[in-house]
Amino acid sequence: MSFRVALAQINVTVGDFASNGSKIADAIRRAARGKADLVIFPELCVTGYSPEDLLFKPSFVQANLDLVRRLIPLTRKTTAVFGYVDKDRKGSLVNAAAVGAGGKLVASYGKMRLPNYGVFDEKRYFTPGSQPVLLDAVSAGAAGRSGALRIGLSICEDIWVDDGPCQAEASAGASVLVNISASPYHAGKLRLREEVLVRRAKETGAWILYVNLVGGQDELVFDGGSMAVAPSGKIFFRAPQFEEGVFLVDVPVRPAPHHDGLGVPARIPWRVSKGGAAVKRSVSPLRTEEEIFRALMLGLRDYVRKNGFTHVVVGMSGGIDSALTVALAAAALGKESVTAVSMPSRYSSAGSRADAEKVSRQLGVDFQEIPIEEVFQLWLGMLRPVFGKRAPDATEENLQARIRGTLLMALANKFGWLVLSTGNKSEISTGYCTLYGDMAGGFAVIKDVPKTWVYRLSRYANKHFGRDVIPESVFRRPPSAELKPDQRDQDTLPPYDKLDRLIKAYVEQNLPASEVRRHCGLPVKEVEKVLRMIDVNEYKRRQAAPGIKITPRAFGRDRRMPLTNRFKEPA
Amino acid sequence: MSFRVALAQINVTVGDFASNGSKIADAIRRAARGKADLVIFPELCVTGYSPEDLLFKPSFVQANLDLVRRLIPLTRKTTAVFGYVDKDRKGSLVNAAAVGAGGKLVASYGKMRLPNYGVFDEKRYFTPGSQPVLLDAVSAGAAGRSGALRIGLSICEDIWVDDGPCQAEASAGASVLVNISASPYHAGKLRLREEVLVRRAKETGAWILYVNLVGGQDELVFDGGSMAVAPSGKIFFRAPQFEEGVFLVDVPVRPAPHHDGLGVPARIPWRVSKGGAAVKRSVSPLRTEEEIFRALMLGLRDYVRKNGFTHVVVGMSGGIDSALTVALAAAALGKESVTAVSMPSRYSSAGSRADAEKVSRQLGVDFQEIPIEEVFQLWLGMLRPVFGKRAPDATEENLQARIRGTLLMALANKFGWLVLSTGNKSEISTGYCTLYGDMAGGFAVIKDVPKTWVYRLSRYANKHFGRDVIPESVFRRPPSAELKPDQRDQDTLPPYDKLDRLIKAYVEQNLPASEVRRHCGLPVKEVEKVLRMIDVNEYKRRQAAPGIKITPRAFGRDRRMPLTNRFKEPA
Repeated sequence: MSFRVALAQINVTVGDFASNGSKIADAIRRAARGKADLVIFPELCVTGYSPEDLLFKPSFVQANLDLVRRLIPLTRKTTAVFGYVDKDRKGSLVNAAAVGAGGKLVASYGKMRLPNYGVFDEKRYFTPGSQPVLLDAVSAGAAGRSGALRIGLSICEDIWVDDGPCQAEASAGASVLVNISASPYHAGKLRLREEVLVRRAKETGAWILYVNLVGGQDELVFDGGSMAVAPSGKIFFRAPQFEEGVFLVDVPVRPAPHHDGLGVPARIPWRVSKGGAAVKRSVSPLRTEEEIFRALMLGLRDYVRKNGFTHVVVGMSGGIDSALTVALAAAALGKESVTAVSMPSRYSSAGSRADAEKVSRQLGVDFQEIPIEEVFQLWLGMLRPVFGKRAPDATEENLQARIRGTLLMALANKFGWLVLSTGNKSEISTGYCTLYGDMAGGFAVIKDVPKTWVYRLSRYANKHFGRDVIPESVFRRPPSAELKPDQRDQDTLPPYDKLDRLIKAYVEQNLPASEVRRHCGLPVKEVEKVLRMIDVNEYKRRQAAPGIKITPRAFGRDRRMPLTNRFKEPA
Repeated sequence: MSFRVALAQINVTVGDFASNGSKIADAIRRAARGKADLVIFPELCVTGYSPEDLLFKPSFVQANLDLVRRLIPLTRKTTAVFGYVDKDRKGSLVNAAAVGAGGKLVASYGKMRLPNYGVFDEKRYFTPGSQPVLLDAVSAGAAGRSGALRIGLSICEDIWVDDGPCQAEASAGASVLVNISASPYHAGKLRLREEVLVRRAKETGAWILYVNLVGGQDELVFDGGSMAVAPSGKIFFRAPQFEEGVFLVDVPVRPAPHHDGLGVPARIPWRVSKGGAAVKRSVSPLRTEEEIFRALMLGLRDYVRKNGFTHVVVGMSGGIDSALTVALAAAALGKESVTAVSMPSRYSSAGSRADAEKVSRQLGVDFQEIPIEEVFQLWLGMLRPVFGKRAPDATEENLQARIRGTLLMALANKFGWLVLSTGNKSEISTGYCTLYGDMAGGFAVIKDVPKTWVYRLSRYANKHFGRDVIPESVFRRPPSAELKPDQRDQDTLPPYDKLDRLIKAYVEQNLPASEVRRHCGLPVKEVEKVLRMIDVNEYKRRQAAPGIKITPRAFGRDRRMPLTNRFKEPA
């Protein structure tokens, strides 16, 4: 005996009501064809997550309510739970789950726990819901009020807290807890989610049916990975990450005598018996390299496509960062949609120039070489009378980077392309990058990827493509910006393995200097110098292109630092 | 008979505990010398406002608590109330007011109403305080518990709400309500504050003593304008805006019999009788032009100085935006700290070139002319084979702007200057500006100033300097980017008076398209086109330099729009 649920892990777009509506309608139809008793959708799938200050536009909220009104009649055959923005009696906004059954709106649950930390600002927008909501799925065969399956609703954060609505719903007899989420990805997040859901299942003795959003929205990737967890804590079903799908799961439960309890339960039908042929198989979790690679692919693809671009252009130095960026672009968008441009100056080595071309050829993307030496020369001459006898310094290095940024932007403007910038997290942390230079671009694919992980993901890229699209020489060449003679990153920065541990401790974990030192193993002076570099370069990060969050704390809305900041971490 | 209070309207810096501590200590000493019974300081004056995610660093919170411990002993002669970050029993952070009296910490009040809208994220950081706090100022002459003046404490938002701690404190016998604030400026904000405080005074029958922070912090200016409001609603004392000061006010009150009530009141001494010679005179509110001009001066000066810069550089086209920016820089920093650079191309008119020099000479700032024609030519030649037969378009316009941006950044890099960008709100709203071009810079002084107000403030600039530093020709020349032959802003944009009304309605007030139309008087098609321009240019604003908020809703943290956004305001 079982209850068939369809986990509708869909990829919606913020504000695209027409397309989001079609996706929801289509999934409801597929669930009905699959004889599902219930189809569940992600949090705020009507509007897309997060709509941010669009929520302050009454026309936006109205368009969302209008769409809900059009969707509800589609629930005649299959009950659906989907996320939308509701208005309470006072007109305050509520992050809500609509329950449509028999073609009617039978209940609406308001999210009770509103996250207001990390990337979340939900208290800016929403009023918390005031009470749990229960549904009784009543089996067609069973008579009257006996023989029902009680289902409790919750939204994302609700299930992460220890004394939230889920516990109350279980106490009131719910043996199935439905949670609809928009839970953003970072490496390791899936395991965190599993731990929480397993704990809740064991603690409440209920089944957990969890649907997560999939897709990229600006700096966030929602990775899907919807699941069903048994009361024993076993993960009964695991949907793939990074893919859309409507996944049918037969949950082995029986009707129970009806408990009265919390609130007035809404009733939905339950077919009870059917075959299991349509039901999808569970997947295994991905390895970390593949998981991050696919998160970056999805985040990039969705940023490009949802913003109406069809082609990207990348400055290709022959170094590992640009190689990985171009490989990701080719993987995410197809090689026809990518142009790589090598822009050598007097300081570009023959090896890196050759590698730039080699990687491009291997990937099959359009490759162009446009040397910048002549325009760099002219600039130097023009600035000579102004600079006088001052020695060359970072100014001349930045100038080359800005000529390249200007060139890429000219190509993007003329051909309607999007520039992808190639900086990694180690660089953007320390300010080892040029504003309006290599930082120029519409999207910074690997900006949250530490340099040590750039290497690991590049190895994975070769696996992904099934051949060495990034040749060994790119891995072996010591990192260099090639902006002055014999330059090496390590002249300015600590070794990347130590630097990345420092960044993790300081940026992601907010540890004090003494702890940071212990984590990275660098001497006091060096740690002090690097922490200072991180602090004073906030102004560059503020003007950086958006990029995909893959760590527990990315720069941006996840880490809101003042620019004017005289605080020095005590040594 | 009176109670003497010192309103310490000070300008602190986020994270600069040494300097903030000195300022607070100095003001306590000045208040003591002035025989004040009580000195009150702004909200979070120990840390600076807002510390944002610095609050997540335990070392930051500890440095703040350490400073409080050092300040408390200074309150032996004069009671002080100052804002700091407290930790509650669970270790949660509280936005608090310390009361130091007789050299001891006699009470700490936790802000009960935490704003989490507009520019505020206080629920991200703080736990609300659980109860009002009262002080009894006991007159030295009066015997025992009779003859006291009961004072209620509150912090900023607390006094803006209709059923907050102020009402509770008044009900419990407070006849003086002290409110310590960090209330950011926008044009018209002072009047809003006065209305609220007057309403509270009348409603509670209490005196309101209100201290506001002064100074710039990134995009916000805190304008001071501290005040004392009588129970009648009369504004008894008004401190100047945009200036630091310790203002002594003799509040004409008498000791009253002691009421028992809410909580346990802390006791502080009250000298009761003294002369009024030291007391400062109240000021009149400024006219709007002067107020905004001074807000911009303060915001600019503080951004530059608090970030350790001593010199700024501005690209000077001869147009009104750059003229006003240079005038503001000269007014805020002194003419010796400003370099204006004219960078003419083939499209720069003789008139604007001459005006660029004229404005600079009038202001006495360093002036340089560096033509960009040669490097522009070289770029065009270099791009010709890549662009093929494609017609010139915005690409070539942007190219000129980016050459100028690169030039200014080269000067800034070489000489350690800060680039001020010159775009106004009308441009940045519609995207009529070039990313990495005229948008390049560390600070965008007038980015929240609509074009029509650029004219008004430029008129005021001439008044401020007492001569026509901006000549009539600059006011008269039709606005043009001068990036192609015979270009006029009005070829692309609606007339600025209508455009600015549209922006106000759409950006500041979130009105639907039909209302926007009514406000600006433009035809449907035109409104649709401009709303679309505003929406799709969010990506440019995301990479813009910070600038000073002067309107009720600036771009930035005040208006958090997704980049990926398919919502189209219904016509």
